[in-house]
Amino acid sequence: EGDRRKPVVILRCAPHPAGRIFTDAALTALHERFTVVDLEGDDSPHALDQALPEAFAIVGQPDLPRERLARAPRLRALLNVEGNFYPNVDYEACYERGVYVLGCGPAYAQAVAEHSLGLALDLARGISREDRAFRNGRERYVADGNSDAILLRHADVGLVGFGNLGRALRTVLTGFAPTIRVYDPWLPPSVLRQHDVIPATLEEVLARSTFLFVLATVTDESRNLLNAERLASVPPGARLVVVSRAPVVDYDALLAGIAEGRFLAGVDVWPDEPVPAGHPARKLEGIVLSAHRAGGIPAAFFEVGEMVLDDLTLLARGLPPVRMQVAARELVGRYRNRPVS
Amino acid sequence: EGDRRKPVVILRCAPHPAGRIFTDAALTALHERFTVVDLEGDDSPHALDQALPEAFAIVGQPDLPRERLARAPRLRALLNVEGNFYPNVDYEACYERGVYVLGCGPAYAQAVAEHSLGLALDLARGISREDRAFRNGRERYVADGNSDAILLRHADVGLVGFGNLGRALRTVLTGFAPTIRVYDPWLPPSVLRQHDVIPATLEEVLARSTFLFVLATVTDESRNLLNAERLASVPPGARLVVVSRAPVVDYDALLAGIAEGRFLAGVDVWPDEPVPAGHPARKLEGIVLSAHRAGGIPAAFFEVGEMVLDDLTLLARGLPPVRMQVAARELVGRYRNRPVS
Amino acid sequence: EGDRRKPVVILRCAPHPAGRIFTDAALTALHERFTVVDLEGDDSPHALDQALPEAFAIVGQPDLPRERLARAPRLRALLNVEGNFYPNVDYEACYERGVYVLGCGPAYAQAVAEHSLGLALDLARGISREDRAFRNGRERYVADGNSDAILLRHADVGLVGFGNLGRALRTVLTGFAPTIRVYDPWLPPSVLRQHDVIPATLEEVLARSTFLFVLATVTDESRNLLNAERLASVPPGARLVVVSRAPVVDYDALLAGIAEGRFLAGVDVWPDEPVPAGHPARKLEGIVLSAHRAGGIPAAFFEVGEMVLDDLTLLARGLPPVRMQVAARELVGRYRNRPVS
Amino acid sequence: EGDRRKPVVILRCAPHPAGRIFTDAALTALHERFTVVDLEGDDSPHALDQALPEAFAIVGQPDLPRERLARAPRLRALLNVEGNFYPNVDYEACYERGVYVLGCGPAYAQAVAEHSLGLALDLARGISREDRAFRNGRERYVADGNSDAILLRHADVGLVGFGNLGRALRTVLTGFAPTIRVYDPWLPPSVLRQHDVIPATLEEVLARSTFLFVLATVTDESRNLLNAERLASVPPGARLVVVSRAPVVDYDALLAGIAEGRFLAGVDVWPDEPVPAGHPARKLEGIVLSAHRAGGIPAAFFEVGEMVLDDLTLLARGLPPVRMQVAARELVGRYRNRPVS
Repeated sequence: EGDRRKPVVILRCAPHPAGRIFTDAALTALHERFTVVDLEGDDSPHALDQALPEAFAIVGQPDLPRERLARAPRLRALLNVEGNFYPNVDYEACYERGVYVLGCGPAYAQAVAEHSLGLALDLARGISREDRAFRNGRERYVADGNSDAILLRHADVGLVGFGNLGRALRTVLTGFAPTIRVYDPWLPPSVLRQHDVIPATLEEVLARSTFLFVLATVTDESRNLLNAERLASVPPGARLVVVSRAPVVDYDALLAGIAEGRFLAGVDVWPDEPVPAGHPARKLEGIVLSAHRAGGIPAAFFEVGEMVLDDLTLLARGLPPVRMQVAARELVGRYRNRPVS
Repeated sequence: EGDRRKPVVILRCAPHPAGRIFTDAALTALHERFTVVDLEGDDSPHALDQALPEAFAIVGQPDLPRERLARAPRLRALLNVEGNFYPNVDYEACYERGVYVLGCGPAYAQAVAEHSLGLALDLARGISREDRAFRNGRERYVADGNSDAILLRHADVGLVGFGNLGRALRTVLTGFAPTIRVYDPWLPPSVLRQHDVIPATLEEVLARSTFLFVLATVTDESRNLLNAERLASVPPGARLVVVSRAPVVDYDALLAGIAEGRFLAGVDVWPDEPVPAGHPARKLEGIVLSAHRAGGIPAAFFEVGEMVLDDLTLLARGLPPVRMQVAARELVGRYRNRPVS
Repeated sequence: EGDRRKPVVILRCAPHPAGRIFTDAALTALHERFTVVDLEGDDSPHALDQALPEAFAIVGQPDLPRERLARAPRLRALLNVEGNFYPNVDYEACYERGVYVLGCGPAYAQAVAEHSLGLALDLARGISREDRAFRNGRERYVADGNSDAILLRHADVGLVGFGNLGRALRTVLTGFAPTIRVYDPWLPPSVLRQHDVIPATLEEVLARSTFLFVLATVTDESRNLLNAERLASVPPGARLVVVSRAPVVDYDALLAGIAEGRFLAGVDVWPDEPVPAGHPARKLEGIVLSAHRAGGIPAAFFEVGEMVLDDLTLLARGLPPVRMQVAARELVGRYRNRPVS
Repeated sequence: EGDRRKPVVILRCAPHPAGRIFTDAALTALHERFTVVDLEGDDSPHALDQALPEAFAIVGQPDLPRERLARAPRLRALLNVEGNFYPNVDYEACYERGVYVLGCGPAYAQAVAEHSLGLALDLARGISREDRAFRNGRERYVADGNSDAILLRHADVGLVGFGNLGRALRTVLTGFAPTIRVYDPWLPPSVLRQHDVIPATLEEVLARSTFLFVLATVTDESRNLLNAERLASVPPGARLVVVSRAPVVDYDALLAGIAEGRFLAGVDVWPDEPVPAGHPARKLEGIVLSAHRAGGIPAAFFEVGEMVLDDLTLLARGLPPVRMQVAARELVGRYRNRPVS
């Protein structure tokens, strides 16, 4: 009875099982504060449709065309827990209705930043390469294996993209006091200066970076942004870290550059995942291979759940959400990221 | 003629060739400011003895018993460029005479700190392990390979030793805002607090650290400091980074702990180098193998040379050295590090 | 002709003259990119009404009831340049229409943070008090005037409110490595932890802070938040900095505490401004008096104009604003700040 | 009896009473660990002479000519607690004997840095000037009193001298992300770069700094370093902070520049202290007057005592001192600072 007055929250967290993003404590708190309609395992439109009329919020990204949204007059928020916005939701209808469209991107930023720095330091010092050599009985001691080793401290660092990932990366780089140049066409230079990084053209970023991090999201504009010509302009011996997103980079040119020894790269995203068995990248020495692992770690998943709980709680108190990212009406339809299987 | 008045500097940089520690520019400056007696390749005591009477400084660590030092009445400084102080020099005679005994340890600190962080992030995220799997066609995508992945941000970090290495490591960790506990028996707690780290006993550091960095130098007291019992006290799943020095750690216990999956480790120093061909560490999954590569990178070597040049220049101007480390009379005889071959 | 296609921007920046917030360069850029309808000096509703049908954006805060907003079908954004949201605009109508309601609060945050730190250091060291004594020939040298001087480094700092001001203040405090406790009822503890501050109750913040900063905005809930009882709980000798907003604090209790020597305070906002001529605060020794000067400095005003130009430019490109603060629908009607005359 | 084996420490802390530099806890620990010969209040050479034969360390700066030092064969350290080295000690005899000459300068650095920043922010924002106006009923609200207010964030900052004070100041400036140029003739540029500041000539520092901090010690070379001509080269409207030492600056030129409104200044040190009653500086508007108060605060004095205790304890354990500053043989005789009365 008392429960009747609790706001109704629909849970349909696929591709995540709820237990991946909610700790036991978070799930308990969620059930205490809300009437939870858990649709995990029930993919039927019917179950969803039944819950919509009372729904205060939907956690997940089920198909929500305009006519279905119309069935949910009390809906206040749509909380995306997958990380990308797909076109199976009529976002414009949400904005017209004043329904918050919330993304969980910030939850992954720290994990991606740390993985990116890990890849960069691996490339700087040959950590995985020399580990492999050690296992094969061909390790080289002290200076012998260090001829191409470089420092990150005071280095020239370039960032392509300065959203959540770029900002988290800038923070973990603090102790290295690097010179950071950033290209981000969606941001005025003033925003970059406020974050104590140097606004730059893409050409400058490529030509002047010893460490280059590719952090851009995919849009029609950013597709193939780092094409063969642009990749040719990075300094010899540069270290490239590609964590987001494959369509931004010409992979043939990338792998050719690595094979020719023009630069080294740590690569976490791939045009086709899984990567084909005989893919030549698997044999390259100048690469660190990573299987789309930068963001999806337990701590990041649980942060998604914590964000969901925190923001639902604020919304139920009549306050605005502060943890998830309010998706911009102008951008939500422009992302071209594909689902991560 | 004018050259006569330039101070005489003896160069005997072994095990380094002079070109490893001096850039061309540094060597040119050195020759402009000093009369350089270059003994590279001339190991004879005779050549050294001839140069001693006029010597203002000696760069390197030739045998210098008391009676030989007595032949160098103008000697102001002994600049050690190898990184360790060996007992082939009569340091007490230097201190009595007011001859500076200078070490180059600080030159390697940044390189060791960055390598240590690289190893820690590798252990946190399985970077080299998953790169190996990828090369073997067994890569695991997204969450599948991340079950033991953890964040460094806000983690509990322990440092055993807080000299040059610990301080450089603390700086590169800044952006991760960790809780850092430090054990260093040579430092009062106040010094640790000034560096914004938490003074702790060795037991606390071991029991409470998710990331543990072994940075202690070898003395009679620190030998076998991390014995089997103490290694047993680290939390399950901890990540250990061993960069300095092998005698501080019980390697049988360390490798057993890794083999049993109690913790993961990145190991840069070894009781016997080169490591024997069939050494079991070469087959362990939970280890990142590194062949004493943390410090000896080109940028560090050139920093040694820059330090030498800077401090010789200050000394010749009648100013105290500021870049190399003035070796403490109390400690110079207590180090038990062996030469790195 | 070409100008016809430029979006129309209405300028009515009162209480600012346009020249206070726009540099010449910004004003030139604004006119290049937009058709500017400048209503400065024309307060008539008529002029505004005439411009509304073509208006893309309104810079300023004229009376905008629902029926008037209806006259502006192309309106995309309302850019508030005064710093507070007053009820002369029908915000709900804006949200329904998808018109951005943008605030300039962030522009003042750095200026307020620096002034706040300046007041805190003045209170810590008696800077203005001893300057006064010096001018009166009663200065006290070295330790004599320092009996109540304290350090900010490693001090206990409390923040009441953690919006733009609190975040900017936290940043300028970085180099002091303080322990920062924060009370903010609109934020979940997770947000505070992400900013490396300690979430706390108001009672804890008051009882444990050597330096206490009052940064809260006025709502019905925060009015008189720091009442006599709560002010009595701050530690003896605490330093209070009151920069935002007077109704949050019981001024009688505040001034009594200062007069009795229980704490010192720097006060920038006042229940009545201008402060009456004979106000007793003017004679207190333990206070630093400031006349609502924390935010309104030239650099902050020009940042308002730069924000306006940057966000208008983004909006005209079909991108979301990134510099001004999107006002939360839930909060815009709850602010009770009065106009600054 | 057991006490006999405790090392003997002579206390003669003048001009400080021991209670100013030692907390009760520190004094208790000192007495537990050492046999303390307390000469406070006993200025006679006789008392000192009697204690010298057994002395392990002397805390203070009594007259110690060579022949008297010869009476102290067990002396290991001379711990200066006043802050300056005067010529009443034969330092050369100490160095010959291997007696540590230790200074307490670092204890005051944080206090001086915070006071300096406080003066700089006062000058940036007119804090004490407007407080005075407020007391006189002439306060100006909001923008009216802010016409010359500037931000420290991202400002051009110049430091003359980069010893303990400069380093502490750099740290407290961290959160402002300024551009810091430093002139220090005793340091090679590499040391400055390591601290992430920009090495510069004195001319550059003067000509390009909006905030200029004078932190140099007095030597024959630095006397009158900031003469009239050099002071004329600072940018109009610059803010000068003079905390160390008066002889470095031409005060006539300094005060003339302030009087003419060419720059503002915060001044903590004076050619003659106490400053004469009718001194014109007392009437200047563009100055913040401070009576040599930057360093001598309770927390700094107690840090001197803690340093003394920590280092004596290390020395007694056979370890080198780490908290006090080992005075450089080359410099100890070059300081020309006068006693602070």
